[in-house]
Amino acid sequence: MSQRVDVAVIGASGYAALELFKILLRHPGARVAVATSRQDERLDSLHPCLAGRLDLVCAPFDADRVAKHCQYAFLGLPHAASMEVVPELRARGVKVIDLSADYRLKDRETYADWYNHRHTDPEGLAEAVYGLPELYRSRIGSAGLIANPGCYTSTSILALAPLVAHDLIERSGIIIDAKSGVSGGGRTPKLSFHFPECNESFSAYGVGRHRHTPEIEQVLSDVGAHSGSRDPVDVIFTPHLVPMDRGILATIYAIPKKPAVEHDLLEMYREFYKASPFVRVVGHLPATKESAHTNFCDITIRVVKGRILVIACLDNLLKGASGVAVQNFNLMTGHPETTGLF
Amino acid sequence: MSQRVDVAVIGASGYAALELFKILLRHPGARVAVATSRQDERLDSLHPCLAGRLDLVCAPFDADRVAKHCQYAFLGLPHAASMEVVPELRARGVKVIDLSADYRLKDRETYADWYNHRHTDPEGLAEAVYGLPELYRSRIGSAGLIANPGCYTSTSILALAPLVAHDLIERSGIIIDAKSGVSGGGRTPKLSFHFPECNESFSAYGVGRHRHTPEIEQVLSDVGAHSGSRDPVDVIFTPHLVPMDRGILATIYAIPKKPAVEHDLLEMYREFYKASPFVRVVGHLPATKESAHTNFCDITIRVVKGRILVIACLDNLLKGASGVAVQNFNLMTGHPETTGLF
Amino acid sequence: MSQRVDVAVIGASGYAALELFKILLRHPGARVAVATSRQDERLDSLHPCLAGRLDLVCAPFDADRVAKHCQYAFLGLPHAASMEVVPELRARGVKVIDLSADYRLKDRETYADWYNHRHTDPEGLAEAVYGLPELYRSRIGSAGLIANPGCYTSTSILALAPLVAHDLIERSGIIIDAKSGVSGGGRTPKLSFHFPECNESFSAYGVGRHRHTPEIEQVLSDVGAHSGSRDPVDVIFTPHLVPMDRGILATIYAIPKKPAVEHDLLEMYREFYKASPFVRVVGHLPATKESAHTNFCDITIRVVKGRILVIACLDNLLKGASGVAVQNFNLMTGHPETTGLF
Amino acid sequence: MSQRVDVAVIGASGYAALELFKILLRHPGARVAVATSRQDERLDSLHPCLAGRLDLVCAPFDADRVAKHCQYAFLGLPHAASMEVVPELRARGVKVIDLSADYRLKDRETYADWYNHRHTDPEGLAEAVYGLPELYRSRIGSAGLIANPGCYTSTSILALAPLVAHDLIERSGIIIDAKSGVSGGGRTPKLSFHFPECNESFSAYGVGRHRHTPEIEQVLSDVGAHSGSRDPVDVIFTPHLVPMDRGILATIYAIPKKPAVEHDLLEMYREFYKASPFVRVVGHLPATKESAHTNFCDITIRVVKGRILVIACLDNLLKGASGVAVQNFNLMTGHPETTGLF
Repeated sequence: MSQRVDVAVIGASGYAALELFKILLRHPGARVAVATSRQDERLDSLHPCLAGRLDLVCAPFDADRVAKHCQYAFLGLPHAASMEVVPELRARGVKVIDLSADYRLKDRETYADWYNHRHTDPEGLAEAVYGLPELYRSRIGSAGLIANPGCYTSTSILALAPLVAHDLIERSGIIIDAKSGVSGGGRTPKLSFHFPECNESFSAYGVGRHRHTPEIEQVLSDVGAHSGSRDPVDVIFTPHLVPMDRGILATIYAIPKKPAVEHDLLEMYREFYKASPFVRVVGHLPATKESAHTNFCDITIRVVKGRILVIACLDNLLKGASGVAVQNFNLMTGHPETTGLF
Repeated sequence: MSQRVDVAVIGASGYAALELFKILLRHPGARVAVATSRQDERLDSLHPCLAGRLDLVCAPFDADRVAKHCQYAFLGLPHAASMEVVPELRARGVKVIDLSADYRLKDRETYADWYNHRHTDPEGLAEAVYGLPELYRSRIGSAGLIANPGCYTSTSILALAPLVAHDLIERSGIIIDAKSGVSGGGRTPKLSFHFPECNESFSAYGVGRHRHTPEIEQVLSDVGAHSGSRDPVDVIFTPHLVPMDRGILATIYAIPKKPAVEHDLLEMYREFYKASPFVRVVGHLPATKESAHTNFCDITIRVVKGRILVIACLDNLLKGASGVAVQNFNLMTGHPETTGLF
Repeated sequence: MSQRVDVAVIGASGYAALELFKILLRHPGARVAVATSRQDERLDSLHPCLAGRLDLVCAPFDADRVAKHCQYAFLGLPHAASMEVVPELRARGVKVIDLSADYRLKDRETYADWYNHRHTDPEGLAEAVYGLPELYRSRIGSAGLIANPGCYTSTSILALAPLVAHDLIERSGIIIDAKSGVSGGGRTPKLSFHFPECNESFSAYGVGRHRHTPEIEQVLSDVGAHSGSRDPVDVIFTPHLVPMDRGILATIYAIPKKPAVEHDLLEMYREFYKASPFVRVVGHLPATKESAHTNFCDITIRVVKGRILVIACLDNLLKGASGVAVQNFNLMTGHPETTGLF
Repeated sequence: MSQRVDVAVIGASGYAALELFKILLRHPGARVAVATSRQDERLDSLHPCLAGRLDLVCAPFDADRVAKHCQYAFLGLPHAASMEVVPELRARGVKVIDLSADYRLKDRETYADWYNHRHTDPEGLAEAVYGLPELYRSRIGSAGLIANPGCYTSTSILALAPLVAHDLIERSGIIIDAKSGVSGGGRTPKLSFHFPECNESFSAYGVGRHRHTPEIEQVLSDVGAHSGSRDPVDVIFTPHLVPMDRGILATIYAIPKKPAVEHDLLEMYREFYKASPFVRVVGHLPATKESAHTNFCDITIRVVKGRILVIACLDNLLKGASGVAVQNFNLMTGHPETTGLF
């Protein structure tokens, strides 16, 4: 474990990639050997904050070059682009942690419906393990391809999994009112993320049709299938844009199957996550700033007028993207789950 | 109408008072003759942005002085302080628009429960008219005392009133997930509103116990009482703090009594508010910035998985406080409702 | 004056145009009859905040149509585009207030040097009056074409004009360290104005080569020419980007020709601007928020270690663009200078 | 070096203390054994983001207890409070890194003038080493008491030291126009840092009388004394408040003694700092965000109209406070200077 593994970051220009670089620089078991982007350019031109810390020149993706130098690749590509690259890397024996949405939905038709794109890699889909360590830790260690979860998704799933696993809530009509900082929208300039448009403003978007919806439902239904009931989980998911850089908070409303007691639920959550170092079940109402720039997910519970409220937050770029990616990498390489992440 | 009425602003130091001054400066039918604050000081020391626009010196409150100079008084005092001042002004014939919470709840025990303070002015309570023109326009014109509504309250009530008035939704279990800019917390420095604490952060607060809850329920129950059903309205109200100056947005989830059609609901809302110049029923998802610095409340509707979502937003200091106060003043003085507010 | 003049806004999609619409809606002497943009579209699609306030459909520019309906046109076009449109409007007798840079620099070569574009309308250039009312009030009233000043420019000129006019400072080596909110960069999305890039960040840009430099020097040299000395004014101008929507503040360092006394300078400034209702000479250090959403320019002076510091701020979209445009319109139409602007 | 040294953080409630905790958690050579605050309370109540990471209970300061457990103490106390505590710790053999201003100014009268407080620890003053490793690296290793520099100070000194050391600029009339995020003002709520006051606003403060002025002059004069000239350095220092959490940027204007060439100056700076891993001399105009959350100071140079402009920025809480404190700790304990800081 004292030896560093050479890794590649494919698609180096985005915000998740930048966080990956920053974590991996501190990771005793990894070395970034290859970074790719559409053009040849210095990494510190793409990300000036890396000047003096990581001396790399990006080149366009070349599977042979990646496979020659690296055993692991992190993919920071847009959806649909990932599924072009993954088979090439897997064919060459490179293990892949894919941050896109391409391998998250098990059902190809669901994928096609929500992403308007036919899925072209059914083998990869069959191989992929959903990379949420808190639920799938045991399968991640031996995986060759990780579908790294979405940011809203992890927040929502971690918040609801204990209730669903213990079959404590109605599976239909769960309301997830979620709020995200602007970095969740990526690094490509567009009017809705233009500073004078979204600064000093708050709005809902994608109501009823955000792509993280089927992902949340698939994973929670899977969690629920191991409890008494096999009913699928069905959520109303409403994302909002918050004028801040990073952080996601979800306020979730669920109907208990039997009367709920706040204190008992908190205890049950603590028990559920006792082996998960990055979930903090807290008594107070958490603010996104408390988990910003960390890999923690903070969760609390309230019972209000017979309804269960779960409030959960995390840093969308870390626990919601690159932090959990390294958590998965740690499990795959035999490092302690927290290496490089505290 | 070409003559200006002299008005007083009692409690001149806060943000709502500042907005009042700015609106009244543009109002052809009003002149700010008196402003009071705890200390003698120039108004433009309290609010440097008023320099060169309003040349007034504040003095501590004196009912005789107010009554001598003014026919109308706007009260920007904290709750419990207002009910000390209102009887003195009413006894002297001054008409009052009270921006505090003191005259909003009709039931003295409910007031005592939520505000930890005994209500000492039952006569005022009996006289007070709830100052939401969209619902109580006809009573406001002849009122002597207006209980100006809360900011979360107006957002929530305007969003739900058409559904409740037409008895289209279940009255229990309505979820109001609301988000407010920081100016809603007032001008007194405290840690939770200290810039480096709340900037770049998002959190829920007062879950299950925010004081606007009983106000929303009282008014919506009153609205509902005129429909087929007399069931009281009961809401789960969850406020959140957004790192921005101003604006409130509420995302509301209600269960329809019979299958709902988005387009029909939008039409019904347009009809409901056709005589209300400050409610804009819009097709797109409104952002708070679109109504910031205006007296508009923007509302839209979505039907998602059989649930009705209402999304409404307004400027918490204008339509949520000082703008609607002037709207009430216009009705009381016979001006067009929009005077000074466009 | 009770009659409204019909005006056109050419180039309706930007931030300055939006502010123009908002001011003109409150202006008793103007009515927006025509708005143009590259595509046919509703004005409230371009600017949702105008819904319910201004019911106009934009169409591409057509000089005949503008001239048929309007006596005045405000131009919110990019530089180089304005000089295509202005001659067409002037030929049809329409008076023009041009918010671009095209008619500000009197010397065509200077224009070509700084804007990389040959100036094609020398006649317009000869006709144009520089629209800073505090300095050129008397010429504006009868002008047919107004070159509306730049935002950094007005801040800097208003801050320095009294010192230069009284020949109190060295004309070389004046340092203008200026800071602007992001709306100053326009409404076209680009990476440097992408929220997660410029939020929580502060930086200098365009050091030594910002296009407002020659404009500041030209006007201050003209001001100085009427004092004892005819030396040209020469400035080092350094703009910075502040993570906020609006506001410009300039901190200016000048070397006095003879020992300076703070109090005397403040008095001299008050005298200089006594007939200018939108310049507030203040004793305290002004914050941009105090003049935000107003047409005021706030100025104060300090003497530190024998150097004169002038600190001035204004709202870049109002006093720095659309507010002063309406101030010019008022002078041209015989309204009081403050109409629509208080 | 594989063994951890036990350290204390005295004054645990502020922002600099929080950053210390976060760095020390990642530092292989340190363990936080003691944290003090005015009341007994859990550290994760003071700083909820530390929950699950650092399990400590704060108690009021007790020199014996600190000395019993710790060899090193970091002091995050307000000025005047530090000089009460330092002698007690030094008498017990504890090495101290003091983040307050108490030991920075060598001259007691200068201290009294600028801090309105008599200095009561002349021995400490004599012992203290100014903790800017880039200039005083050799003395820091053996020091018992470190006066950790101010945030504006480090920015300004690192920006100017190469020019002064090589005697390339006039020593009088240097202008430092500096801008800081709000965390620089500390964690105590006050109106000027109340979110709705400073958000969306920009202003100068403390013009001509900010306490970092004499500190900058003292250190730069010391640097200059080793060059050809012994003239003291004299600066005009103007701080401004930027609506962001963290980051300082200084724009500095100096007059060269002989004509300056940009490229040569950049090379000279690179040479000057070649052994300093945390100074990045860059060609582009740096933004504070590029050094935020790092221990880097980014510097660039421009020559404009014969004047030298130096633009430097750093994170006020890290390189400007707690990061450099750990850099000093590394030098004192024999760790590589970068340990825990990359």
